Amino acid sequence: MTEEIEELFLELKDTSELMIDLAYSALLYDNEEIAKEVLILEEVVDKLNYKIQRTAFMVSLEDKNVDKALAMIRLASGIEAIADAAMDIADVVLRDIEPHPIFKMSVMDSDVIITKTPVLRSSSLTNKTLGESHLMTETGMWVIAIKRGKTWIYGPDENTVIKNKDVLVARGPREGAEEFLRLTKGR
Amino acid sequence: MTEEIEELFLELKDTSELMIDLAYSALLYDNEEIAKEVLILEEVVDKLNYKIQRTAFMVSLEDKNVDKALAMIRLASGIEAIADAAMDIADVVLRDIEPHPIFKMSVMDSDVIITKTPVLRSSSLTNKTLGESHLMTETGMWVIAIKRGKTWIYGPDENTVIKNKDVLVARGPREGAEEFLRLTKGR
Repeated sequence: MTEEIEELFLELKDTSELMIDLAYSALLYDNEEIAKEVLILEEVVDKLNYKIQRTAFMVSLEDKNVDKALAMIRLASGIEAIADAAMDIADVVLRDIEPHPIFKMSVMDSDVIITKTPVLRSSSLTNKTLGESHLMTETGMWVIAIKRGKTWIYGPDENTVIKNKDVLVARGPREGAEEFLRLTKGR
Repeated sequence: MTEEIEELFLELKDTSELMIDLAYSALLYDNEEIAKEVLILEEVVDKLNYKIQRTAFMVSLEDKNVDKALAMIRLASGIEAIADAAMDIADVVLRDIEPHPIFKMSVMDSDVIITKTPVLRSSSLTNKTLGESHLMTETGMWVIAIKRGKTWIYGPDENTVIKNKDVLVARGPREGAEEFLRLTKGR
C-alpha cells in the first residue's frame, strides 16, 4: 500500500508541474495544441486524486489513523489545485483573443525562461537519449515537450531519444538557454 | 502602462513558482518557518493581483478593448491560483500531524528533487554571488532558500552572496544534486 500511494503522489506532483510548464508554453507560443494537452492531463490528475482518496480511506480502515488519511487527502487536493491553475492558464489560450505581447514578455523576462528550438543534423544531441544528453545538468534546461513532425511528446523522460529535426521546448535559466541553443545547432 | 503591467505579471509568476517550491520544501523538511513564508508571499500575490486588475480596467478605459483587459484578469487569476495551491500544501505542514514519510519519499523520488546542504569553508562557492557561482547552468540546481544563522532568505537572486555556513535549499535534477553537494563541500 505504501509503495502504491507513494507512486500516486509522485505522479500527481510531476504531472501537475508539467501542466504548469505546458500552460506557460502554450501562452508564450499561443499554441492551442499544447493548451489542449493541459486539459487532457487534467483528467489524468483527476483520476490520480480519486485513487489517492480511495487509498487514504483504505489506509485509515487498516491502521485506524484518521488524521494520517486526512492529511493525505488534503495534500492531494493541494497538488490537484496546481493542476487546476494550469488549466485556468491554458483556458486563456483556448478561449481568449490572442494574448497581448505583455504576457509573452513576462514569460521571457523571468529568471526562468521557456525556449523552443529545432535540433539540427549537426547537433551532438541527435540520437542521444535525454539522459545521455546531460542537458539538465550541463545547461540547466529541462525539456518539457518535443515536437516531432506533426506529433508532440509531452513530458519526455530520460529514455526519450532526441531525433534530428525534433523541435525541443525547454525551460531553464536565461544563461543556460544560450548554451542549450548552441548544443541544438552543433557540436 | 505596458511596462508596469509586464513587471506585475513577471513578479506574480515568479512569486507563485517560488511558493510552490517553498511549499514542497516545507513539506519535505516538515519546516513550519518555510510554510509560514508561503502564507506571507500569498499576501504579496493578493496585492499584485489587485494591481493587475486595476491596471486592466485602466487599460480598457484607455484603448476601449474589453477583451484584452478581461484576458489580463483571467490570466492573473490563473497564476494566483498557483499561489493558492501552494498555500494549501503549506497548510498541511502547519495544521496537520507530521506528514507521513510517504510524502517525503514522493518529493525525493521525483525527477526533480529538493535538497538541503550547508556550505563548508572549503567550498568554492563561499563569497560568490549566486550569479557568479553558475550553480544553475553547471548543475541544474536552483537555490530557492538560504538559511543564514537563524534567519532565512527566500527566493535569493543572482546578486545574493553565498556565505560560509549558509544552508542552501535547492531544487533540480537528481544527477545535478550530486555535483551540487560536492560543490558545497569543497573545490
